[in-house]
Amino acid sequence: MQAYDLGLIGLGVMGENLALNLLGHGYAVSGFDLDAGKRQRFADRTRGLQAQAAHSLAELAGCLQRPRCVWLMVPAGQAVDSVLAELLPHLSPGDVVMDGGNTLYTDTQRRLQSLAGLGIHFVGTGVSGGEEGALHGPALMPGGAATAWPRIKPMLQAIAAQTEDGQPCCEWMGPGGSGHFVKMVHNGIEYADMQTICEAYALMHHLLGMSPAEMSAVFRAWNQGELASYLMGITADILAHTDPETGRALVDVILDTAEQKGTGKWASQVALDLGVTAPTMVTAVFARTLSSLHGERAQAARVLPGPAPRPAAPREAVLAHLHNALLAAKVCAYAQGFSLLKAADREHQWQLPMGTVASVWRAGCIIRARVLEDIRASFEHAPDLDNLLMAPHFAAVMARCHQGLRETVAMGALHGVALPSFMSALGYYDAYRSARLPANLLQAQRDYFGAHTYQRIDRPGQFHTRWNP
Amino acid sequence: MQAYDLGLIGLGVMGENLALNLLGHGYAVSGFDLDAGKRQRFADRTRGLQAQAAHSLAELAGCLQRPRCVWLMVPAGQAVDSVLAELLPHLSPGDVVMDGGNTLYTDTQRRLQSLAGLGIHFVGTGVSGGEEGALHGPALMPGGAATAWPRIKPMLQAIAAQTEDGQPCCEWMGPGGSGHFVKMVHNGIEYADMQTICEAYALMHHLLGMSPAEMSAVFRAWNQGELASYLMGITADILAHTDPETGRALVDVILDTAEQKGTGKWASQVALDLGVTAPTMVTAVFARTLSSLHGERAQAARVLPGPAPRPAAPREAVLAHLHNALLAAKVCAYAQGFSLLKAADREHQWQLPMGTVASVWRAGCIIRARVLEDIRASFEHAPDLDNLLMAPHFAAVMARCHQGLRETVAMGALHGVALPSFMSALGYYDAYRSARLPANLLQAQRDYFGAHTYQRIDRPGQFHTRWNP
Repeated sequence: MQAYDLGLIGLGVMGENLALNLLGHGYAVSGFDLDAGKRQRFADRTRGLQAQAAHSLAELAGCLQRPRCVWLMVPAGQAVDSVLAELLPHLSPGDVVMDGGNTLYTDTQRRLQSLAGLGIHFVGTGVSGGEEGALHGPALMPGGAATAWPRIKPMLQAIAAQTEDGQPCCEWMGPGGSGHFVKMVHNGIEYADMQTICEAYALMHHLLGMSPAEMSAVFRAWNQGELASYLMGITADILAHTDPETGRALVDVILDTAEQKGTGKWASQVALDLGVTAPTMVTAVFARTLSSLHGERAQAARVLPGPAPRPAAPREAVLAHLHNALLAAKVCAYAQGFSLLKAADREHQWQLPMGTVASVWRAGCIIRARVLEDIRASFEHAPDLDNLLMAPHFAAVMARCHQGLRETVAMGALHGVALPSFMSALGYYDAYRSARLPANLLQAQRDYFGAHTYQRIDRPGQFHTRWNP
Repeated sequence: MQAYDLGLIGLGVMGENLALNLLGHGYAVSGFDLDAGKRQRFADRTRGLQAQAAHSLAELAGCLQRPRCVWLMVPAGQAVDSVLAELLPHLSPGDVVMDGGNTLYTDTQRRLQSLAGLGIHFVGTGVSGGEEGALHGPALMPGGAATAWPRIKPMLQAIAAQTEDGQPCCEWMGPGGSGHFVKMVHNGIEYADMQTICEAYALMHHLLGMSPAEMSAVFRAWNQGELASYLMGITADILAHTDPETGRALVDVILDTAEQKGTGKWASQVALDLGVTAPTMVTAVFARTLSSLHGERAQAARVLPGPAPRPAAPREAVLAHLHNALLAAKVCAYAQGFSLLKAADREHQWQLPMGTVASVWRAGCIIRARVLEDIRASFEHAPDLDNLLMAPHFAAVMARCHQGLRETVAMGALHGVALPSFMSALGYYDAYRSARLPANLLQAQRDYFGAHTYQRIDRPGQFHTRWNP
């Protein structure tokens, strides 16, 4: 009987593609899914390869090399606990179990502790790159039981994407739920990045009257420069796509309702819990929730007035501002994401390798972008950087781009085009660079009605005033 | 032995003032606090009144009229559970226990269920108005075990604030944790309202170069009109206050670091959980978290450039825009708050009385404001209103004020004054009144990299495209 290198549980598109990726790199894989149809499809697609579709978790566990390595690709949440409960009786101390779903990091921490008691090494692995990435090279963000790393490292680094300079997009993130936390922050940044691109598209459409084909060309050109990123590239592709049924641009016949699966929400809620200012992530989540109110918005459009968007100043000038606005907003979103990583690192003492996180994100994942090499270099140069905005490279980017962000926000405001994410980025930037915020008045208000006290600028202590005249 | 009407546990400033308020309305109160000093102070301050400071929970429970009524005013969280555990052995079925702290509504729901098993009627009561309100008339938002309402209603309505038309600011909110939920939303709106006032102050300071005394006069004048509110009034008071030590305006020597106790954060997190778009609340929370980075901001101010705020167009014109911006942002914050109430209502089937919520907030509480009478009337006229912005009165307010909000946001953007909350309100308004948002592109992106499918505008169904050219 063949001793398989890895057991893969959950043969949906992601799981199956990861298995094919592993098989392509010479690893023998036993796969299992509760759904007999998926098991059959897996058997069909892997015929002739070193693979089998196991008929039960017992069969899967029985045919693996010892110590075993099992990779779960099942939906995050209850399904993971169910599979673990069924799987555990078939495992032995020293075995490794990986969860590659978009799991909430606190769940990973809980499972890690519970499995450690049984001698099982549990790893929570962020996986990014979508279907294509899973098949051809995803970015992987493993963290958890460090003992497992030497065992899984060759396999994971073999199937991961590689950067232009030949680094695998898979490194050890740290203990506990750090791997899934890093992936959650990745997704928070992804939400922000997608939303600002959409707002740029809205401005081009409403204010400049550009066609999808014209916009595609602009995004395509921007994708050659500082803004180069996977999301910029696919946006250019999408805008160039014609609907075979209507002959119109396909994007024009798609309903303007965006869905979400929860990782952006988690990132936002955790930012609130950790006291990290992350408005651009949250705004992107709210852009999706508001988009779902399709009927309400149609009614509101008839009732609530705004200025008619007028063709603005020369197209070239507007686009130049918009280019810089996209770059500035992107930097602000990354700054928020890395601040969130730093706060979690302080809270959990994970010793997160910030430069390595940026390095791993340089290829394979959805937010891969040229800017990540500069982020990696910035954190390598100054690992204790308080905020990405303060890295010399990015301070210079902001110095060059903040005016474009200002002009874009002002255009949106005055012409009635909703740009919540651009606005949140500018608000973040200007508040962060404010030596004096109006929070003195706010703290005085709190002291007025709730005797919450305040501090003074000229000497230490807690003070309370009876303000009522 | 005197049979007291009510037992009050927790004799901090709020608890003590509520007790004095009850005593002033003829109710006999037994008070208890773990802290002997607070018990002594209570005994001193209530000498000659129908009060006693009990030395134990047993003594307190023993001297109350049956069925008993006990009001907890202890810090939210673990302390409530501890007190309940110690108190329960001294209670009998049919007794009423109220929690008046800023408790998370899910905790209230849990305690309600657990105490119901013992025949104890548990009520979670939002209390707003600060120290002064507690003493002279707070707004009260009770919810939970409806059986308790007839028993506590006369007492609570007696001590509550009264509106100008003679209504008590205390009505039954509904079952479960609804009372504490309503209070949490109140606080979320409070956060937003305070932050927009602070941003108005920042703009007056940085862009118009106004002195605190000049600003005080403006806020005082605005407090006579549509913007009239408790927070507007105390802002005028604060800005007029001179520091006896330095002779400067006291606000100028207060450190610009605002603290928070968590209710705004909860409101934001719950909004995210319920899928309610509430950016102005969240932005206000983030304004506080960013204010805490005092040292970082001072450094950033030296490194990160922005335009020098220049004295803008005639002061009167800027102030006119700012007035309307404040009103528009306030309406948006309330719209978000009431949307949050409606979403929770759908989720928990509380049957929240929206008009009554607005009515109760008209006096006594921190967000009391002239605008609340119009909100009350709007919900009374149309209880099923989807969004406050769609009420004819407020659609008209927005029609009149949106341009002021636009001009204010554009000024802040172009002059480098951070106005995150004003911006969030405008982003919310413009997105809500968008018949077509750019979420079509976003959903196409999701379909491109994750095969998440999309809907079309011209026929039902879920569609997937292989976008890759």
